Parts: sequence; C-alpha cells; structure tokens
Amino acid sequence: MIELEAIYHRSGLNWSYAYNESTVHIRLRTKRGNVAQAQLECGDKYNWDKYNESIAMEQFASDGLFDYWQAVISPRFRRVVYYFALYGEAGETVYFLEKGFFDTPPTILYEGLFDFPYLSPEDVHSPPEWVKEAVFYQIFPERFAKGDPSIDPEGVLEWGDVPSPTNFFGGDLQGVLDNLDYLVELGINAIYFNPLFSATTNHKYDTKDYMLVDPQFGTNEKLKELVNACHNRGIRVLLDGVFNHCGHTFPPFVDVQQNGPASRYADWFHIRDWPLKEEDGIPNYATFGFEPIMPKLNTGNEKVKAYLLEVGRYWIGELGLDGWRLDVANEVDRQFWREFRREIKRANPDAYLLGEIMHDAMPWLQGDQFDAVMNYPFTNIVLDFFARRCADANQFAQRINTQLASFPQQVTEAAFNLLGSHDTVRLLTLCGGNKRLMKLAVLFQLTFLGAPCIYYGDEIGLDGEHDPYNRKCMEWDPGKQDRELLGFFRRLIAMRKAHPALRGSGLRFLTVTGHPQLLAYERRDEQDRFLLLLNNNETECSVTLQSSGMNRMWLDACSDADVQRDEGTMQVVLPDFGYAILHISADTGSDAILLSAR
Amino acid sequence: MIELEAIYHRSGLNWSYAYNESTVHIRLRTKRGNVAQAQLECGDKYNWDKYNESIAMEQFASDGLFDYWQAVISPRFRRVVYYFALYGEAGETVYFLEKGFFDTPPTILYEGLFDFPYLSPEDVHSPPEWVKEAVFYQIFPERFAKGDPSIDPEGVLEWGDVPSPTNFFGGDLQGVLDNLDYLVELGINAIYFNPLFSATTNHKYDTKDYMLVDPQFGTNEKLKELVNACHNRGIRVLLDGVFNHCGHTFPPFVDVQQNGPASRYADWFHIRDWPLKEEDGIPNYATFGFEPIMPKLNTGNEKVKAYLLEVGRYWIGELGLDGWRLDVANEVDRQFWREFRREIKRANPDAYLLGEIMHDAMPWLQGDQFDAVMNYPFTNIVLDFFARRCADANQFAQRINTQLASFPQQVTEAAFNLLGSHDTVRLLTLCGGNKRLMKLAVLFQLTFLGAPCIYYGDEIGLDGEHDPYNRKCMEWDPGKQDRELLGFFRRLIAMRKAHPALRGSGLRFLTVTGHPQLLAYERRDEQDRFLLLLNNNETECSVTLQSSGMNRMWLDACSDADVQRDEGTMQVVLPDFGYAILHISADTGSDAILLSAR
Repeated sequence: MIELEAIYHRSGLNWSYAYNESTVHIRLRTKRGNVAQAQLECGDKYNWDKYNESIAMEQFASDGLFDYWQAVISPRFRRVVYYFALYGEAGETVYFLEKGFFDTPPTILYEGLFDFPYLSPEDVHSPPEWVKEAVFYQIFPERFAKGDPSIDPEGVLEWGDVPSPTNFFGGDLQGVLDNLDYLVELGINAIYFNPLFSATTNHKYDTKDYMLVDPQFGTNEKLKELVNACHNRGIRVLLDGVFNHCGHTFPPFVDVQQNGPASRYADWFHIRDWPLKEEDGIPNYATFGFEPIMPKLNTGNEKVKAYLLEVGRYWIGELGLDGWRLDVANEVDRQFWREFRREIKRANPDAYLLGEIMHDAMPWLQGDQFDAVMNYPFTNIVLDFFARRCADANQFAQRINTQLASFPQQVTEAAFNLLGSHDTVRLLTLCGGNKRLMKLAVLFQLTFLGAPCIYYGDEIGLDGEHDPYNRKCMEWDPGKQDRELLGFFRRLIAMRKAHPALRGSGLRFLTVTGHPQLLAYERRDEQDRFLLLLNNNETECSVTLQSSGMNRMWLDACSDADVQRDEGTMQVVLPDFGYAILHISADTGSDAILLSAR
Repeated sequence: MIELEAIYHRSGLNWSYAYNESTVHIRLRTKRGNVAQAQLECGDKYNWDKYNESIAMEQFASDGLFDYWQAVISPRFRRVVYYFALYGEAGETVYFLEKGFFDTPPTILYEGLFDFPYLSPEDVHSPPEWVKEAVFYQIFPERFAKGDPSIDPEGVLEWGDVPSPTNFFGGDLQGVLDNLDYLVELGINAIYFNPLFSATTNHKYDTKDYMLVDPQFGTNEKLKELVNACHNRGIRVLLDGVFNHCGHTFPPFVDVQQNGPASRYADWFHIRDWPLKEEDGIPNYATFGFEPIMPKLNTGNEKVKAYLLEVGRYWIGELGLDGWRLDVANEVDRQFWREFRREIKRANPDAYLLGEIMHDAMPWLQGDQFDAVMNYPFTNIVLDFFARRCADANQFAQRINTQLASFPQQVTEAAFNLLGSHDTVRLLTLCGGNKRLMKLAVLFQLTFLGAPCIYYGDEIGLDGEHDPYNRKCMEWDPGKQDRELLGFFRRLIAMRKAHPALRGSGLRFLTVTGHPQLLAYERRDEQDRFLLLLNNNETECSVTLQSSGMNRMWLDACSDADVQRDEGTMQVVLPDFGYAILHISADTGSDAILLSAR
C-alpha cells in the first residue's frame, strides 16, 4: 500500500521553484521505500492536449523516514500545471493532485492540479555566482594581526596574552593588509570580517557609529585600501552588519537616555515605558536578548529604515565591499530586508547578502531577502558526527540528505558552511584536541557544496573553549603554528578549487556494509569522479570496493591510507580517523560500487 | 505507535505565524486518530528557565488523513522557541524538534528547536478589518443596468436579448447609480466591478487606456460620483485591475506593432522574435494564454512598473476606490506585487488587494503581496457537494477542514468566497435549475467565514451556461424576478450581518449518524450559538438532536423545516433539500450534541 499520510508536496518553497530563468524543479516526498516510481505528469494549462509530457522523477535523496524525488523541467511557455502518478511495489497506483489523492487520473486538466503559474526572471532566487566558488576566511579583527601600534586602544595587552571578555590586543586593518600573502597562500578567496565599525567592546557588536571604521582598527580610507588590495588578489570582502540593534553609545540612543520621551529619537527604539531602566535583568525597552547595552532598533520607523539603508548602500557602493553578513537577521522585520536587498543590489548586483539565522531559514530564502544564511544546521550535523560522535555514518548521510531536500538547490549551493566561529567552541577543541578527527570534519566541509568558511587560526591549530577563549590572538610564529595542519588545509582548498566536482551539486552517499563509522560518498560532474572514504573511528579500517569500473584508472588523490588495486577490486586500509580521496577523470560510468569494510 | 511520517510542522506559512501584533498561532499535523494529545513546550530563547510554558494544543480540524492541532500564544518578549510533545493512545511519547524526532525531551533548549524569532508588526499579514464584515456583489458592467442611452456603444441591442461573445447591451455606471437602493435592500455592502477601463470588448479585459473609464460606461467623474454615492450608503467599491496583460489597442503595443524593435516600447513586452506574428495559434510574444489580443506586460521593466504603479495609485488615491481585484495575479512577478502593495497601502492603508489565483495561493498570502485571493478551492468544494453532488457531507466537511488548516486564520477570514462569476456556469444552472439546492449552497456560503460574493442576478434567479450565457442582462422587471429567492438572500444576508457568530472563526462540523447527505455544523461566539442543518438529499429527512443543552431555549431562526422540542431532545423534519437554522443566545455550554438522522 502506498502510504498517503507520508506523501508531501505543496506549491512553492523547496517543492516547486525556479532554479534559473528557464528551469523549474518539482519535488515530492514519499515514505521511505514505499513508492517504486514517481512520475510527473505535466503540461501547459492553456493547451494541455498539445503541450504535455510525462517525466520519470529521480529519487535524489533519502533519509530515515522519506524518499525525495525530483523532476527538472523547462516549460516552453514558462508555466506548467502538473500532478503526480505514484506506482507502488505491489502494482498499485495513486494520483496525487493539489486537491487530493485519487485512484484514477484526473479528467479535468486544470482545476485541482498543482500549478507553477509563471517563471518570472524577477522571482528567481539567484545568489551571486561567485559564492559557489568561494572559500571564506573569518577574521575577528581585534585578534587577527597587529600592523599599526600607533592606533592601539588604551591598556592594550601583549599579543598572545590570555583573552578576557573585555581586554584588547590591538589587531587592526594594517595587520590584515600585512598578511594578505598568507591568506593567498592558504588559498581562500573571500574574507568575512566581524564588525569593523566604531563601538566600545572588543567584538564591536555594540555599534556607536555605523559610518566610521573603529579608530582602533584604522580609518575608512584604510579599509578602502584593504578592500582594493584584496580585490587585486581575487579576494572578496564581506562586512558584518549589525542592524537588529545598536550600541548604547549610538548617538540617537544617547539622546533618548538624556531626553526621554521628548527625544526626537524616541521612536527609533521599542520602549515599553519610561524612564529607561532594567529590573531583574530585564530592560524595559527591547534589546538583543536581555542585553541592556544593545537596544533593538525600530526598523519599522521610516527614518530608521532610511538611515540603515544608506549605511548599507554606502559601504557597498562607495567603499566597494562585496556584501553583508547580517547579524541576528531573523529578529529584524522582513519588510526591512526586502528594501535592504533592493538598495544593496542596486548598488552592486553581485553583492552577497548573508543572514545569520540558526534555524530553518526557508522564509528568508525565497529570492526577496537573503542570498544565503549561515548554515548552522550543517554545522550541527557535521559536529554531531565528527566531533560529538553521537551519530553513525548512515544517520549523518540521512541528516545531510534531509537538508538537501529541504531547500532549493541554489540555496544549498550558496550556503555559508561554517564549522566554528567567534560564537562557538573552536573546532579542534570540540574534537577533543584530536587533529585527525578535526581533519575529517574539514575534509567533509571542503568537499561539500556551498561556500566553506574557515575561522581564523583553525588552520594552524588554534584551540579554545567558548568566548573569550575562542578569540585568542592569531599565532604568527611559524615555530608555534601547526604547519602540517596548514598544509592539509592548503592542499584541500587547492583541490576544491581545481575540481568543480568537489563543490558542485553532484553528491551521492554510498552504502557501506560492515562498518557504521565509515562514511563514503561520491562527488562527480562531467569532468571528474571522486570517491571519498572517511574512517570516523579510533581503529584501523579495511575497505573493499568492488565494481566493473573499479579498475586501474583510479588515482589516490590525497590520502593517509594504503591503497591497493586489482582488476575490479580495490582495497583501502584507512588508519584510525584516516581518509582517502580516490579520483578518476572523465568517467562516464554509472556503475554501482559495492563497499564493505571491517 | 505514533506515525512519524504523517507528522508535519515547518516554520512559517500556515504552521507558525503571527495572527496579530501580539498573538502567534502554532500548528501541527498528525495522522488522524493517531495522537491522543499534543503539547506545545515553548519558551524564551534567551532565558528558557525563567520564561517557559507547556500548552495543551487544541485539535481544531480533521480531514480524511490528518488531525490538525493549534496553540495560541502571546510571547512576552515577542519571540518563542518550541518543540512538540506528542502522546500516543498507548502511552508512548515522541518529542518533535526542528532537527527531528526523539524519545526523550531535549537537553539543549535552543539548538535544534523550532524558532519563531520575532513578532514584528511590519510582518503581520493584516487584511483590512472591513473585509471580514463585507458581503460583495459582483457587477459585470455591460450587463447590469442601463442608465444613460446617450453613451450606448454602436450597434447596441435591446436589453435582455440573447448575449453573444461580442455583442453589447449598453449597461453603464448611471445604471448602477440608479439601482443602488436595490443593492442596499439586498443588504450587500461592497461591489466588485469587472473592468471599467477603456477597451474594445464587452468584458473590457483588453485594456486600451488604464486611466480612462470606458466611454460606453461613463466618465471618470461619473465613477467618482458613483463611488461617493456608494460610500454614502456604506458600500465599498472594488475595481478589476488587469496588469498581467493589456489589450492590443494599448498605445505602447500599437507603437510596437508599427515600429517593431525600434519602438521605444519594445521592452514593455516579452517578444521572442520579430516581426510579431501568430503561427498555429501561438503568438511569438508572450500573451495571456495564447490570446494574441492580450499581450503580456513586462512588469520587470522599471518603466512599465512605474506606469502601472501610478495607475494603481490613481484610482485608489484620487478616485477613492477601496481596492483592486487583480486579474491573473499569479502570472505576474511577485516583486511587482510587493511594490504594488506598498504603493497602494500608502495611498489607502484600508485598501483591499484581492488576487485572482485559482490554486493554492499561500506564496502570495504572507503579508507582502495580497490581502486575500478569490477562494476557488472553496468554490469547488461547495459545488462538488451541493451542485455536482459528488461528495457526501463527511467528505465535504473534511475538505473544508483541509482548507482551514492550510492557511493562516486571517487568510480564511478575508478570503473572497464566490460560488460563480463571469467565468463560470451560473450557480442555478449548475444546480440543474433546482432552486432549493442552490439555496443550500448559498446558505453555506453566507454562514462561512470570509467575504461572500454574489454574482449579479443570482439572487433573482438568473441562470446561464458558460460565457456568453452567464453574462445575460440583469432582469429588472419584478414580475420576471424570482422574488421568493430574493427574499431568501435578503434574510440570510441580514442574519449574517446581525450575528458576528455567522461570519467569525468559530466553526465546528458535527457528526451525524445515519444520513450521509445531512450536513450539520455549529457557528458560535460569545453572544450566539447557531446550529445549521442542511439536507442535501431529494427525500425528506428526520433529525434527532440530543444533549443536555438541547432545551426549550433554542429558536428556529430561519427554516423551511418542522421543528419540535422536548426536554433534552429536538426533532427536526427537513423536507427534500431543506434546512434549519437553530439559534440560542448567550449559551456558554460546550455540550456535545448527538445527531442522528434518517
């Protein structure tokens, strides 16, 4: 029996969407293993008889509960109505229309069908193309590098001393400029800066002046110099925009503190009653969290909106920045983000708008607001498997598949995939200091689609618990850097950049018998086929690969494994937490590989 | 066992939304009869320990496959994270988080939970309040009433002659003005006009001049006079806006026809190649359907956009119209509609934006585009039961419930519920000429939430097959009008207007044993409780109602039935296609009524 309760499709979101200006993806969910074949029956609503087709849907992902199917179509007149014909294992058939489930195909071919009414180019969710190729590097500016001691803040400490929530070490923009070659050698091609604007704290999330680079970091001119230097090296630059709230030293809030309800800025904030105060840790005005020094801005106020839109435009249009990472983006109203998008894209259509949203971000990723979000669901899935080790390889693959199925393809392609940041425990620390384990997580990150981001210092072995210890000064003494780890990052980044298959959408998890901690997946496009084997276990693991295509053509692209080949069979011995990347060029075979391990 | 595959919730859409500026609705779907109780566990993400609660969800609707649950919350700090605790019949418990299903409650109370990040007033989908109270009347202006013979189009026929797709009868705005008292007596309080702007056809969907009332109908001044006269009588006026396409006589398209690619208006349209032509019935430029006289407008072009936004603003802002019914709304890009909404609401925040969308309209009903859509799913469900008679009462109730569960409550409250229009067969004709059957459909329409719309003439017995026969001239000779039917409409409309319970959101279908064609439902609020019994069958039906509350207080509000009361029991004998509306005031009982019928 086909289980009707498990079947899902609804117009829009990840279920029916324009992938680009001529292509529509239609997706369907069924109970896992319950439907043998799904067929998309589709046609033109104004002339079904002349323009209709039946398309076999591809089962593109599965998780613990469901199979996910997809059909890719290019409707001649940019519109399509459709229904699904589902064939069960026992020969039964169900027809799934917008108006319900039926035993027989519909006789009326418009009413009650699903409708993709018109593919308007204006509605296509189109993140900038460059993001798909990007490898980001996150810089916490106070702690990355010090280049100009003359602008040190008061009471600055010795570089490398123990960080506290409130102390300063004097990192600045000149320091970044001085170390651009290091970043070029690492291979990254985009920088995400934590806030640079004038503020009182060392993290600068309490903005005082949105139009001014903090004097401790440099000047607006110095930032422009840095942006130009980055652009000359093919590096794009993303700024942190904190528009949900300002700092308590932001002049309009100072005015409100001084003048109360009489302030001309009183309605720039959400003030519940006067005078401003805090009781039992709860301010009587809206803030970020319950943090009194971060009053929430009233983005519904036209004046506030005009001010922030001008801020957004200025740094993109005048300073040449390449986009915004938008702090606490899900607590700001969406109407504001729609206008923000229009303003920014007018200044630079290629600007990247990246929202900080920790949960399901679908409502912000429909083409009218953000290009992408910080992919925390990805982070958690990867950390659960590799760092926290509370999932096996099969569960890991299923959770990744759930994510792939939950978003339009272009959303995944432009996602910002991080494994750590200034807000989390450092990756190496999460991995219990086990560098080999950390490498496996990074290997997956760097061979997955979306833009990976490396948190400064992870690549040379910086560790640290939660804030303030995840914000240590960058280690610049080569003798104290983990150069072997750095080499690993460089090799992997170079490999990713050289092979589109490693960053494209062709991803398939492989079933491995006999070893729950061995993760195997395939990455391929028309040029390349990669097979990745990751042994997420503390003991050695011997993998046997069998298939008609498993011949001598395979190369060991990058391994710490012992690889032996024979006709039709390959033996790979992976050490504890070891990995192998097997590669073959121009392979058009679609042979199933049998994988077993012990 | 709790069936995980049937459970559904995803942030946004109808699943989590702000109902107003302080209230959030959280909904959940489970397999029908599979979950005994659903509990919403929710709290503040920045201080769960201090601010959290556990709320029993109400099962507010069921259909053939699913039960739907809802919790209504008012988060103190306008934000809430949550998960669901589901209790099965056999004592088993499942915890449903954004990141999946678990056997034990979560220990980390932020990561992986569902998140409603912030209730911003700007994001609340808020249709105008007046729409909830509205009873619309649709006027096809060429055929409603003739008041000024001096502006008759050429070759006008005798009023009441047989309509053809191309003939004219001379209906005009003066005719509407002359008959406003008739509409006031009927009880309607809003008019929806089919297009009034200058065009060549009798239906005027091929606009020639968007800024001019068609001379056959009158002048812009005459429309203003009519709007003022309507407003003086408490009647609002909705115009048909055809912005997907224009007519072939629209000057920019004429220019394109004359000057080809050199025309300054060439990019106002979607032209695939030159010269413009039609081959095998397919124009080589985008049109509405394949209709060559209706070229599709390029709403992605800033000039076209500016022009149409000014049109939209002019009629609302200068002429005082109360909103737009937007033709073929789902084939126009959404970016256009977002800007259109902003422009119109700036001119009149109370303007009603009504999209013509025949399918699932959720993507357009998230607060950024339309207030509501023409509720064709409702139309089809009602017609299937009452007119086509291909469903029983239980299936009907389930399909209505599916709709209620599929949209935010305010969407249903502002929906435009029609049973026929200029595009469909007339209701009476669909009912096979059976007036008693037609009355049942209208009774349901007028006691359901949302704004009902009566297609001109339905109320006096006009019949007619598809276009052109559904566009007959209105019958003004009282001797030829069905006055009994008119009386029915007047009584029902008056009752709806007098009792908010009949138009509010308190709706519950009742189970009837013994009679598949008897529909029973309850409409109630704090003031009133109504019990509606509709016998959708060609034979008499005897209904027995039993409950502790079924005492002598109940009144027969409006029936063609024989009602007898006894302590704890009521007997209602409904003739073929008969109905009863039972009423009790200020009843606070929540007694279950046992209904049986034969």
